[in-house]
Amino acid sequence: MINLEGRKRVIIENVQPTINGGQFPVKRVTGQTLKVYADIFADGHDLIAAELLYKKAGDKNFRSVPMKEIVNDRWQGRFTVEQVGNYYYNIRAWIDHFRTWQHDVRKKTEDNQKVAVELQMGAAYLREVAQNAGGYDKKQMLKWTDKLDSGHTDETIALALSEELSEMVDLYEQRPYAATLKQDLVVTVDRSRAIFSSWYELFPRSCGRETEHGTFKDVEAMLADIAKMGFDVLYLPPIHPIGKKHRKGKNNSRTARPDEPGSPWAIGSKEGGHKSIHPQLGTMADFESLVSQTKAHGMEIAMDLAFQCSPDHPYVKEHPEWFKWRPDGTVQFAENPPKKYEDIIPLNFETEKWPQLWAELKSVIDFWIEKGVRIFRVDNPHTKAFPFWQWAIEQTRKNHPDTIFLAEAFTRPKVMHRLAKIGFNQSYTYFTWRNTKHELQEYLTELTKTNLSDYFRPNFWPNTPDIFSEYLQYGGKPAFIIRLILAATLSSNYGIYGPAYELCFSEAFGTKGEYLDSEKFEIKDWDRHAPGNISHIIERTNQIRREHPALQETNNIDFLHIDNDMLLCYIKATEDFSNIILTAVNIDPYHTQSGWVQIPLDKFQIPHDQPYMLHDMLTNDKYIWQGQTNFIELNPHIMPAHVMILHRKLKRETDFDYFM
Amino acid sequence: MINLEGRKRVIIENVQPTINGGQFPVKRVTGQTLKVYADIFADGHDLIAAELLYKKAGDKNFRSVPMKEIVNDRWQGRFTVEQVGNYYYNIRAWIDHFRTWQHDVRKKTEDNQKVAVELQMGAAYLREVAQNAGGYDKKQMLKWTDKLDSGHTDETIALALSEELSEMVDLYEQRPYAATLKQDLVVTVDRSRAIFSSWYELFPRSCGRETEHGTFKDVEAMLADIAKMGFDVLYLPPIHPIGKKHRKGKNNSRTARPDEPGSPWAIGSKEGGHKSIHPQLGTMADFESLVSQTKAHGMEIAMDLAFQCSPDHPYVKEHPEWFKWRPDGTVQFAENPPKKYEDIIPLNFETEKWPQLWAELKSVIDFWIEKGVRIFRVDNPHTKAFPFWQWAIEQTRKNHPDTIFLAEAFTRPKVMHRLAKIGFNQSYTYFTWRNTKHELQEYLTELTKTNLSDYFRPNFWPNTPDIFSEYLQYGGKPAFIIRLILAATLSSNYGIYGPAYELCFSEAFGTKGEYLDSEKFEIKDWDRHAPGNISHIIERTNQIRREHPALQETNNIDFLHIDNDMLLCYIKATEDFSNIILTAVNIDPYHTQSGWVQIPLDKFQIPHDQPYMLHDMLTNDKYIWQGQTNFIELNPHIMPAHVMILHRKLKRETDFDYFM
Repeated sequence: MINLEGRKRVIIENVQPTINGGQFPVKRVTGQTLKVYADIFADGHDLIAAELLYKKAGDKNFRSVPMKEIVNDRWQGRFTVEQVGNYYYNIRAWIDHFRTWQHDVRKKTEDNQKVAVELQMGAAYLREVAQNAGGYDKKQMLKWTDKLDSGHTDETIALALSEELSEMVDLYEQRPYAATLKQDLVVTVDRSRAIFSSWYELFPRSCGRETEHGTFKDVEAMLADIAKMGFDVLYLPPIHPIGKKHRKGKNNSRTARPDEPGSPWAIGSKEGGHKSIHPQLGTMADFESLVSQTKAHGMEIAMDLAFQCSPDHPYVKEHPEWFKWRPDGTVQFAENPPKKYEDIIPLNFETEKWPQLWAELKSVIDFWIEKGVRIFRVDNPHTKAFPFWQWAIEQTRKNHPDTIFLAEAFTRPKVMHRLAKIGFNQSYTYFTWRNTKHELQEYLTELTKTNLSDYFRPNFWPNTPDIFSEYLQYGGKPAFIIRLILAATLSSNYGIYGPAYELCFSEAFGTKGEYLDSEKFEIKDWDRHAPGNISHIIERTNQIRREHPALQETNNIDFLHIDNDMLLCYIKATEDFSNIILTAVNIDPYHTQSGWVQIPLDKFQIPHDQPYMLHDMLTNDKYIWQGQTNFIELNPHIMPAHVMILHRKLKRETDFDYFM
Repeated sequence: MINLEGRKRVIIENVQPTINGGQFPVKRVTGQTLKVYADIFADGHDLIAAELLYKKAGDKNFRSVPMKEIVNDRWQGRFTVEQVGNYYYNIRAWIDHFRTWQHDVRKKTEDNQKVAVELQMGAAYLREVAQNAGGYDKKQMLKWTDKLDSGHTDETIALALSEELSEMVDLYEQRPYAATLKQDLVVTVDRSRAIFSSWYELFPRSCGRETEHGTFKDVEAMLADIAKMGFDVLYLPPIHPIGKKHRKGKNNSRTARPDEPGSPWAIGSKEGGHKSIHPQLGTMADFESLVSQTKAHGMEIAMDLAFQCSPDHPYVKEHPEWFKWRPDGTVQFAENPPKKYEDIIPLNFETEKWPQLWAELKSVIDFWIEKGVRIFRVDNPHTKAFPFWQWAIEQTRKNHPDTIFLAEAFTRPKVMHRLAKIGFNQSYTYFTWRNTKHELQEYLTELTKTNLSDYFRPNFWPNTPDIFSEYLQYGGKPAFIIRLILAATLSSNYGIYGPAYELCFSEAFGTKGEYLDSEKFEIKDWDRHAPGNISHIIERTNQIRREHPALQETNNIDFLHIDNDMLLCYIKATEDFSNIILTAVNIDPYHTQSGWVQIPLDKFQIPHDQPYMLHDMLTNDKYIWQGQTNFIELNPHIMPAHVMILHRKLKRETDFDYFM
C-alpha cells in the first residue's frame, strides 16, 4: 500500500556546493579542501548524527568524516582532495538514538530524577547492538549492559554517560533508516595550474629577424626571456597552415596581397589542417622541441583550439557533409549579418554526421596531447554545441585528467557560465571592460562570493590581439601598469598579449577597440627591449605572485573600504593568515590620488593599540601603521599601486633597525 | 559510441519557481497566475523559441503558451490555474531556424545585399516543412516556395519577412531536437481560503451558561455573533473524550480535582478516541448540525488534529505496538527532559507496524471529512515523521483537494519550512514574537520576497491558548488593537483566540508567556460584551479585509520608508493597482508617534504635482496628500493605526464637497 520506508525520518537538503542541483561537478585543485554544507534535521527532538562520505573515482569504498552542526540545522563537513581526477561525495545522516538516550539521562539526573528504568532501556539498546559485534567488544558491551541493569548509582550513571559507550555503539550500530542523497555529487580535481597561472601570448611568426617569418626555433631563443618575466604558460595562436582563398590582408582588409600571411585563425590549406603545422613555422619535430624546451624553462605551451576552417581546409573536400552548402553550390562561410567572414567556414554541428565530426575533433585534441600539450585555449567555444564540449572534455580528461581547457567565450553571462559548468577549467572574463572601482568590486564579488566561485575560474587579460581597451589606448604607461597589477592581483589566473603589452603599444585602428596594424594579419618586428618597456614591473609582479600563496587563489579576495573612488584596495590571505597581501591601486592613470583605508584588524587579530608593518614589494618601501584607519597616496607616474605584505607582529628592534 | 543526441543545442536551466529543484510542488490558489521563469539559450547566434506547457492532473494533453525573453537569456511565461488540485508544467525550447533565416534576410537587405540565394534556402526549408502539412496549407506553402525561388524582388522580400510565413511554419515544423525539462514540475492549487482566511478560536466548553459545561448547541447560539465580527473559520480545540489518568488541573497542576475537566489535548478515554465526541459537548448529530449551521453563517469549522493519546485512549490497549513501552511495563509518556507530560502518550512513528498506524491516522482524517470538515489545524506536526504527513496530505487531497491543513509547528525554521514543502497549506509563524519595526519588516520580507512565498503560507496569530506575549500583557487595550491590525493587514491569513482577545484579557501565569487560569485546564465564563471589548474594531477590520482584494494576499506587501522606528507603514496593492491599501501602525502602545512617510508615487503612476486622497476606513477620516513625503501621526489611545484606501485620482469637486 505505501511504497516507501516510513521510518526514514532524517532530511538532508540544501546541499552546498552543488551546481544545477548536482548535475555538474564543482571544481577544486589538488590539496584543496572541499567544505560541504547541508541542512540536516528530523521531526521531534532526537539528536542527529551525520557523516560526509567521499572517494576518488575508481576507489571501491567511501571514506567518511563526521559532519558537525554549525547553527540552525546547518551542518558542515570537509575533506581534502589529493589527486587529479573526479571524487564522489555524499552525506549520510541518522537519528542518534543512543546519544539521545544519554542526553535524556543527563538531563533527568541533573534534575535529581531516578533513572533506573532509563538505564534498563539503555542496556536493552546496547544489548541489541552487541549482537552485531564479536570477541572482546561484544563481551565488553554485555558487561556494560549488566552494570546498567544493576540500578541507579553514581557509577552506573557515569558509565551511561561515558563517551566510551557511545563510541562503541557507533562501531556496531545498524542504521537501516539512515538518509543519504539519492545521487553522489562530484568534484573535479585539477592540477594547481588551473587556479594559478600566468600566461604570455605571442605570435611565433613575429619572432623572426626584422619582418622575416619567425619559426619555432626563434621562439625557443626567446624562452629564457619570457621565463625571466615570470610567466608559466606560453600561449600560441593557431600554428596550422593558413588558407589562401579569401585570405584577409592588413587591418582585416578583404583582399590580401600575395605576400601577406593571413590570419592564423583561417585554418587549413593544401598543406594540411588542424593536425598540421604551418610550414614556415617549422616541422613537427621543431614543435616537439619547443614543447620540451618550454618545459625545461619551467613553462608549458598552450595550444589554440579553433574548430573552424578556411575554404581551403582539407575537411571541406573530404567531409562536405560537415558543412552547410548553399543552393548555388558554395559552402557557407561565417557571418553575423550583415557582417561576413569569408576566410572562415564554420563546422555544422547540426549535421547528421555529428558523431563522426565529434570523433574527428576529439582526435585533434588527442593528436596534440600526444605531442605533449596539456593546455588548450579554445577559440569561441560558444559557437559550437555545448554537448560536444561536455563530451570532448570528459573523454579527454578520462585519460589525461591534467588537461586544462580555457574557454575564450566573450559572450552573454549565462553562456559563459554554462561552458564552465560543462567542463572548461578556466574562462576568459569581462575584466577587460571593467574599469571603475564599482565595476571591479561588483564583478569580483560576483565571481568569488557566489555559486560561480565553485565552477567558473576567471582568467584576467588586460589585452588580447582582439581586445584593446580605450583605457589602455589613452592612459599611457601608467594605464598598462595599473591593468597589469589589477589582473595579476585580483585574479590568480591572468595573461597578457605581448610584446605589445610590455611595450605599452597604444595605437588603435578605428573606434572598436582593435589594434592598428594588428598582428593577426601581418608579421610584426617588435623590439621587446625598447626604452620605456615595463618588463621589469611584470617580472616583479610575477615574482611576488610566486612568493605569496595568498595571491595564488582568487576566491579569497576581500575589498576594503577606502574613501576615494579612484583607489581600489583589497586583501588576500591564506586561510591560516600566515600570508596576508594588501593591494592598493590608483585606477586613475593621470593624477595622484590619496585616501583613508579601513583595515579589518579584528578579522586578522591585530590589536588596535599595536603597530603592524606593510612592506610594499613593488618598491621595497615599508610603512608602520596602527589602528584601523590609515592613509594611502599613489602617484601613477611613479608607481600606481602598492602590493604589500602585511606583517601582523612587529619586532620593534629589528624593524627600527630596518628603517635606519 | 556517443549515448546522447548531439544536436540538442538548447539549454533550459534555473527554472523558477521550483522547490528543492522540483522535488515539491509550488502552491497557488484558483484564479491565480503562475509566472514561470527560466534561463534559455543555445550556442551561437540563432534565435530561440520557447513555450510553457501546462495541464491539470488527469488531462491528457498539455496546453502551451509562448514564453518571452525578458533580458539576458531570462525567459518568462505564465498560465492561470482555474481548478483545485495539481497542475503539471514544463518548458519546451528549440532553435527557431525559420525566424533566424528571416532575421538574416532582413539584416542583409537593410545592408543592400542581394539575397536570391538566401531566398532559395528559405524556400527549401519551407518545402520541407510543407511535407508535414496537407490540404490548403500545404498548397499555400508550396506556392510560397515557388515565389521565393523566383529571385530577389521587393515582393519576394516582403513575403520572406512576413509573419504569415513564420506562423505557418510554427504550425507544421518538426522539432526533433527541442529541449524540455526532464521532469514535469507541479503546482498545487488550493481554494482561495488557503490564502485568505480569518480564524476565530474558541473553547466550546466555555460557551455554556456561567461555568456550566458548554455544548455544540451553545456554540451554535454564538455563531451569528462570530459571523458578525467577520470571521470565516471557527477553530475548535479537540472535541474528543478527555483522559482521566494523570489529568492536569488548574494552571497545569499535576493533580486534578475530580470536577476539573482536563486538557482537551489529552485525547481518549473509555468513551472513545479520535473518532468520538466528548459526551458533555453533545452527540455526533449535534456536531454535524454545528458544521452545517456554521456553513449557513458563511463560515466553516476547523478541527484540531492532535495525534497523541491520553493514557486512557482505547489505542493504548488495542494497539500497544504503536507505543513505546518501558521495562517496568508502563507506557512511555511525553517528555522533554527534564519536563514530563504525564497526561499525553506519543505515538511511536518508528514502530514496525507503522503502515497500520498511518492507515488508522488517515482514517481519522477521512472520518471527519465524512462529517463535513475540510479544514484541519494540526497540533505539533513537527513531532511526527515528515513522510507520514506527506503521504497523508497527498492521499487526502486526492479525493478532497479542497482540504486545508494548517501546521501548528512552533519550532526551528527549516522544520517549519519542510512541513510546508510536504503539503501543509498554511503555517503558524513567529509573528507572535516579532514586535519591533525591524523584526516585522525583516520577517515579512523573508516570508514574501524569498522562495518561501511559493510554498509557505503564513497565518498570523497575536495570541493562542498557549502563547500570550508580554507585549499584550503590558500594552493594554492599544496593544490588542495594534497586534490585531498588524496580523490582519500584514498577513491575509490570521486568527485570534477569543474571547480572551476581544476582552483584552491581560493576566499572565508565571513569566513564560502563559495565560493565568488558562482555559486549557478549566471552563471559563467569558462575558463577550463586557465594556472595553474591541469587537467593533475586529468587525471593522474584517470588513475592510473583505472589501479590499489587496488585503486578500500576503506576498504583495511593500514597506514604505518612514522616519520613526515606532511607525510601521506598508502598501498592498492588486496587480493592476485597482485597489491600493496603505496601512500605518504605531507599534508603541503608550505614546503618540509621528513621522514623514515616503510614497512611491512613480510606481503607482501618481503625478508629483497633483493631490491624491487617502481614506482611513477605521475612522472614516480622509486626507488629501501631494508629493512623495507626507505626515502621519497616530495616538494609540484614540486609534493606533490607519488602514487607508489610496485614491490615485481626485475628483476635486466631489471631494471638496465631501469635506464640507
